Amino acid sequence: MRMDVLTLFPEMFDGVFNSSILGKAQDKGIVSLNAINFRDFAGNKHSSVDDMPYGGGGGMVLKPEPIFSAVEDVLSRRTQERDKSTETEPVSPPRVILMCPQGETFTQRKAEELAKEEHIVFICGHYEGYDERIRQYLVTDELSIGDYVLTGGEVPAMVVIDSVARLLPGVLGNENSAVSDSFSTGLLEYPHYTRPAEFRGWKVPDILLSGHHANVADWRRKEALRRTWQRRPDLLDHVELSPKDRKWLEQLQAEREHGDPIG
Amino acid sequence: MRMDVLTLFPEMFDGVFNSSILGKAQDKGIVSLNAINFRDFAGNKHSSVDDMPYGGGGGMVLKPEPIFSAVEDVLSRRTQERDKSTETEPVSPPRVILMCPQGETFTQRKAEELAKEEHIVFICGHYEGYDERIRQYLVTDELSIGDYVLTGGEVPAMVVIDSVARLLPGVLGNENSAVSDSFSTGLLEYPHYTRPAEFRGWKVPDILLSGHHANVADWRRKEALRRTWQRRPDLLDHVELSPKDRKWLEQLQAEREHGDPIG
Repeated sequence: MRMDVLTLFPEMFDGVFNSSILGKAQDKGIVSLNAINFRDFAGNKHSSVDDMPYGGGGGMVLKPEPIFSAVEDVLSRRTQERDKSTETEPVSPPRVILMCPQGETFTQRKAEELAKEEHIVFICGHYEGYDERIRQYLVTDELSIGDYVLTGGEVPAMVVIDSVARLLPGVLGNENSAVSDSFSTGLLEYPHYTRPAEFRGWKVPDILLSGHHANVADWRRKEALRRTWQRRPDLLDHVELSPKDRKWLEQLQAEREHGDPIG
Repeated sequence: MRMDVLTLFPEMFDGVFNSSILGKAQDKGIVSLNAINFRDFAGNKHSSVDDMPYGGGGGMVLKPEPIFSAVEDVLSRRTQERDKSTETEPVSPPRVILMCPQGETFTQRKAEELAKEEHIVFICGHYEGYDERIRQYLVTDELSIGDYVLTGGEVPAMVVIDSVARLLPGVLGNENSAVSDSFSTGLLEYPHYTRPAEFRGWKVPDILLSGHHANVADWRRKEALRRTWQRRPDLLDHVELSPKDRKWLEQLQAEREHGDPIG
């Protein structure tokens, strides 16, 4: 898979693209990550990429030409590479994703959808607005990573790239995939403990030291349910619950209502 | 304000900390940003920071010692700096934020709350779990930036740092603050246009070229309402609407129900 990011600050991506899991995924040839400065496509003598808004008001607006030209350049380079290879299939058009607060809220489901693509182009503005024609005639998706304001689309693009890349086959070793998938059971993770068994007087729960696997599994399920019920009860609507799970949740509910502490 | 990030991959932060608005904010002395490798605080000969989970199962768990020691080191260095200065106030304890999928969902309101702090420490795990005692006895807040899985807490920490830093007085110039605040009116932004007035046959709406300020303002309000109603109707519950706004929303609703196109 190829992911290209159009930005005025390509150097922002160096640390994240070269580090850890994304760095290894590129070394293995699973993903190609490129940060491209769309100022190189300004096509005017001052290399200006933004201008004042029609109709007045504050702020600057990113012009359409540099961004259209940068996307077209990326696509034409992909076509040239393909022509040199033994592949005969035509190059399919990329997904073109605008990072912006008005976009659809990014979710794990969207990450799974994007992980099936061959080529994604991200457009990152940096405090400027986007000329509306970019949205209307170039972009296939608009994405927001959450309800908070950031200085630009760069860090949000890193979020999407990281979440998509880790889903590609071969990117995560088995040793890495287990703990991270907090949403894989639909519940929040149960509490983890490692050595030392006692740290500054705070002990690991006895049950985890007992060696009794069934009891450990039972404790972990209960704690995952408790944490989810306390913090994200909305997630419980989408989880398959056993009769035992339901009984435990009823106990927790009764405890909350009556103030009786439960183990 | 000081923000310290504890991570096993401090080099991931270079690009974002040195670039653009965060770089300038540090140059101006408004914020101090530091990425600290908590492996330096492992305190054992193999510099190991994680270990197998008690109770068995896959994945590794971050040990408590290195992270407690790293936070304590940061605090003691702050105290030493304070002792050398003319300040007489004791150093207040930092907010200690764990980036994790089980955390409270980060919002603009939380960014505003954090922007009042003097010192924030972020703890970033990287696919490992956290020993529960870190959560219980060290951390003041647990934050998640959204419902998607990432390879680590580093990019989420960048999200929080960026959103908090831009709220500090003097970080954003006036020229930058206007367009970016998509949530400031409670509505999504109206469409922006800049030159050229015609690009590849696609024209800027006539009204924006008319020079009639009241009509432009009216058009923008309507388009902001339309976009919010189409994409994020939940936001409309929190916006003060004029009788004119309400009439427009009713028109949009009628159009959807009867299929009559509206301007």
